[in-house]
Amino acid sequence: MDLTARLVELNAAYARALDNEEFERWPALFAEACLYKVTTAENVARGLEAGVMYADSRAMLEDRVSALRRVNIYERQRYRHIVGLPYVMGAEGDGHRVETPFLIVRIMRDGTMSVFATGCYRDLVAANGAGALSFRERVVVCDGGRFDTLVAIPF
Amino acid sequence: MDLTARLVELNAAYARALDNEEFERWPALFAEACLYKVTTAENVARGLEAGVMYADSRAMLEDRVSALRRVNIYERQRYRHIVGLPYVMGAEGDGHRVETPFLIVRIMRDGTMSVFATGCYRDLVAANGAGALSFRERVVVCDGGRFDTLVAIPF
Amino acid sequence: MDLTARLVELNAAYARALDNEEFERWPALFAEACLYKVTTAENVARGLEAGVMYADSRAMLEDRVSALRRVNIYERQRYRHIVGLPYVMGAEGDGHRVETPFLIVRIMRDGTMSVFATGCYRDLVAANGAGALSFRERVVVCDGGRFDTLVAIPF
Repeated sequence: MDLTARLVELNAAYARALDNEEFERWPALFAEACLYKVTTAENVARGLEAGVMYADSRAMLEDRVSALRRVNIYERQRYRHIVGLPYVMGAEGDGHRVETPFLIVRIMRDGTMSVFATGCYRDLVAANGAGALSFRERVVVCDGGRFDTLVAIPF
Repeated sequence: MDLTARLVELNAAYARALDNEEFERWPALFAEACLYKVTTAENVARGLEAGVMYADSRAMLEDRVSALRRVNIYERQRYRHIVGLPYVMGAEGDGHRVETPFLIVRIMRDGTMSVFATGCYRDLVAANGAGALSFRERVVVCDGGRFDTLVAIPF
Repeated sequence: MDLTARLVELNAAYARALDNEEFERWPALFAEACLYKVTTAENVARGLEAGVMYADSRAMLEDRVSALRRVNIYERQRYRHIVGLPYVMGAEGDGHRVETPFLIVRIMRDGTMSVFATGCYRDLVAANGAGALSFRERVVVCDGGRFDTLVAIPF
């Protein structure tokens, strides 16, 4: 399977885990030592390191999921990720730098839908022990910057 | 051509037939004996079988298109399907189970655009006699649940 | 790499150049003699040739980018292209006719997001001297028709 097909597979699994609310499947898509960060294009342009979400290991992502399961019981909106076409920037070590645009729609309980976020995933992907691709880095660069109510949900 | 590329081809043909209003091309993407159903995530979660649209053969899909052609003359909105990345769940018989997210934008006659529906296609695909993939099942699971005016349009 | 993967690569590079505002990368994706046009489905249906943007060479695209850089300094909205799955219509000469749906979200400075445009890219692609695919034709057929304020931005 070529790199494009493997990137499709990885990104499709990512979106599916989140949208099906199978959050426990989400950390498994990352390497054990990893970088996961949610930030904005404006922060990146200004050189600001701070983001709205940060983790540097799969264990931290698992903690996040546990917290989400405790806190989020009454939250009834759903999300739908539409992941665009991956752009391979080039090889880096035994992995690849990739940028992939995304769009997230939020669906409220009454059926109202709206564009919740758009942006670009800036990834470093590499084969894990089992030969499948996983994320060593996924930096989620959001185009907009209003995330007041929803910081608990992975992007 | 690998499975990912063939799924891209099938889903692109599906979206194109609907968005170009070449509805007659739509049934040909299904097997003769097939399941096509439009339902909601809420119905699926509750175990409800009922959907807003149902067909169990290509002939029923063709009837639907004929009805659409008769009824729908004055309807002037357009739709645009953005189909996301397919996720292959696994093999089943000589086919594959696949889940693919989608987003449908509705464009009104005055140019107003809005997110009309999002959701996930839950498919069983297999090669037809000609070697191309077709749908044995396509269950359209919509995230929201308001379809009052538009049940006539395939998703 | 098969055609689907190459189309993914080309379309991903296109979207990325525009959304990252690396406009100078955009003309390089076209052949030197090329057709680039932005029009609407309504114009196409009526057989009208006129579009909201037109170029028939890479040099004209480069001029357009230069103009954009001069005029557009104070424009602060961002755009995000989500390019759908490419549909290969067939071979033509040493190239291929392809149709690919797209969705563009506009992000205002205050973070407000809205669907700005949807439509279909009608392309003729062929390998350039370096072996990569480039556009001989890209006709951008927009579903809606209100482009009053933003004709300067490539679609």
